[in-house]
Amino acid sequence: MRLPHITVLDPSRKPFLQAHLDDLTKPQGSLGRLESLGLQLAWIAGTERPADPEAFLLTFGGDHGIARHGVSAFPPEVTPQMVANMARGGAAICALCRAHRITHRVIDAGVAVPCDFPGVSQRNVVRGTADPLAGPAMTLDQAKASLQAGMDEVNDIPSQPFALLGLGEMGIANSAIAALLVCALSGLSPEEAVGPGTGVHGEVLNHKVSVVTAVLAKHQPDPANPLAVLAAVGGAEFGAMAGAMLAGAARGWAVIVDGYIAGAAALVAIALDPAVKDYLVWSHRSAEPGARRLLQKLEIEPVLDLNLRLGEGSGAALAVPILRSACAVMREMATFSGAGVSTAEMH
Amino acid sequence: MRLPHITVLDPSRKPFLQAHLDDLTKPQGSLGRLESLGLQLAWIAGTERPADPEAFLLTFGGDHGIARHGVSAFPPEVTPQMVANMARGGAAICALCRAHRITHRVIDAGVAVPCDFPGVSQRNVVRGTADPLAGPAMTLDQAKASLQAGMDEVNDIPSQPFALLGLGEMGIANSAIAALLVCALSGLSPEEAVGPGTGVHGEVLNHKVSVVTAVLAKHQPDPANPLAVLAAVGGAEFGAMAGAMLAGAARGWAVIVDGYIAGAAALVAIALDPAVKDYLVWSHRSAEPGARRLLQKLEIEPVLDLNLRLGEGSGAALAVPILRSACAVMREMATFSGAGVSTAEMH
Repeated sequence: MRLPHITVLDPSRKPFLQAHLDDLTKPQGSLGRLESLGLQLAWIAGTERPADPEAFLLTFGGDHGIARHGVSAFPPEVTPQMVANMARGGAAICALCRAHRITHRVIDAGVAVPCDFPGVSQRNVVRGTADPLAGPAMTLDQAKASLQAGMDEVNDIPSQPFALLGLGEMGIANSAIAALLVCALSGLSPEEAVGPGTGVHGEVLNHKVSVVTAVLAKHQPDPANPLAVLAAVGGAEFGAMAGAMLAGAARGWAVIVDGYIAGAAALVAIALDPAVKDYLVWSHRSAEPGARRLLQKLEIEPVLDLNLRLGEGSGAALAVPILRSACAVMREMATFSGAGVSTAEMH
Repeated sequence: MRLPHITVLDPSRKPFLQAHLDDLTKPQGSLGRLESLGLQLAWIAGTERPADPEAFLLTFGGDHGIARHGVSAFPPEVTPQMVANMARGGAAICALCRAHRITHRVIDAGVAVPCDFPGVSQRNVVRGTADPLAGPAMTLDQAKASLQAGMDEVNDIPSQPFALLGLGEMGIANSAIAALLVCALSGLSPEEAVGPGTGVHGEVLNHKVSVVTAVLAKHQPDPANPLAVLAAVGGAEFGAMAGAMLAGAARGWAVIVDGYIAGAAALVAIALDPAVKDYLVWSHRSAEPGARRLLQKLEIEPVLDLNLRLGEGSGAALAVPILRSACAVMREMATFSGAGVSTAEMH
């Protein structure tokens, strides 16, 4: 496995893009967050007038040995059931992608049972990860293969000069794995990083914190070695999302991070290659408390705040029309000089 | 002028719609704000599976006598210039409507000079309002005509069983008028309701507060008589937006409120007929401080929080894809029973 080359974005381009924004027929800054998004997308696209981007949304499925410790509100058989539901177009992410001209693809990265439903991309690298309380969740080879699975999936997308790539997931118990990665790579504590996920509360939530604490104590993951962290705590869909993020950035695309699970995968991607960071757009502030704390720690203001906690890539899909709006503003608005509109003046 | 009849939405329908939401293949409540939006839109549409709605965005232009008191960062000639820019498709709202399959219409409701540009709907009721420090901004007849202008514009839209109707505006100095209406109808103080608008600060902002305070002292507007309030402080685009809101609700459509200016118009509409309230979707939390305070006072959680302060209907247009997403989720997601997906269970 070789990581793809990501072009470091050049900060000296930014003043030119800002000047373009400030010449558009609106009071300076009046489009708020849409302006900073427009600037970032134009920066990535390499033009002050980015074309209307195609959008792709990949949902990676995976299962987790940690589920045997009772850390989720849903039983593990829900993972393949939901992958099947996605393949049939019945999941939330399917409805959202159809609504917004987004090409959706479901990938088996590490589901415990075969998901040979029509339309599911077959990239399984492990039939469910191992129990991280008993040993590493994945071997180093499996961890590398999961990154490669994500890269391969993105590289199979036909040629696009600029595009939006959203990443999401489906995997029972994966909010526990997200918490593990967030603790290992960002320094949050288990108490800060563990949350209800799909809906655990009270005693079960306390138990989830203990399990995460015990896994961290066992593996003592070293943030300087992200591949080893990924192998130790899992899981396959995280590796696949991280690989997809790196491959998307290497293709010169904007990469949309969904919620907490994808955010944890983004930490892996950033640890592997910090150049990916400028290509990432964080789509929403998830209802999961750890997600909010992670965004705060990274000093990131996401696009949406809709109290979502579903995953699948749902927040990333919802951000797509906002990102296309930001491109449209950069591309299509008239300039003050061109439109004969007077600029601000006190009088 | 007769106000249209708005059907009062029946709260007893809500449990049925909530049950539909809870049978969709996702953890209950996991789509957060999208679920409450889906419920509201289904309630308005009268079906748990609302069709993909057409969307219409009306931008009403108006000028204001209060501008002579130096309360805006831009000179009044910008109003017709921006109406022309919209007619040519160069404004932000035009780019946003093109990006999101929204039919956009620009209306002269009260611009000071004729706006006879191709495509501008001619519904002028006053060539700029009068100075509200010298007398009423409009006569009662002009105020009524402005409501009628908005109603007529909406009633000219071809038959649609369910649709999204966004309202926006363009009018130099109209954030001062919004502050006047908000003070008169919601009880905020001038200090709370007046803000920078398109960009006044320091001394000019203080002056804007004094002007608003003086106008309120002169007219002592009575919130029990919204038509008299509208006439006393203005302005034509506010009346037109209020009329459009009432007409949209009467047609059974969801009405999207843009930012501060449209929010002030919504207060007029609600005062005229409280039944309109359940049809309103507040699209975003504007950067204008008074807008935030008004939402807080009304206990409304808007859809977006993008720090916008442009107007034109830009926030309403950005909310359209989110609202269509909410409809898509209600309409297209599989149910637990139908999809063979296990529901939550502790284990």
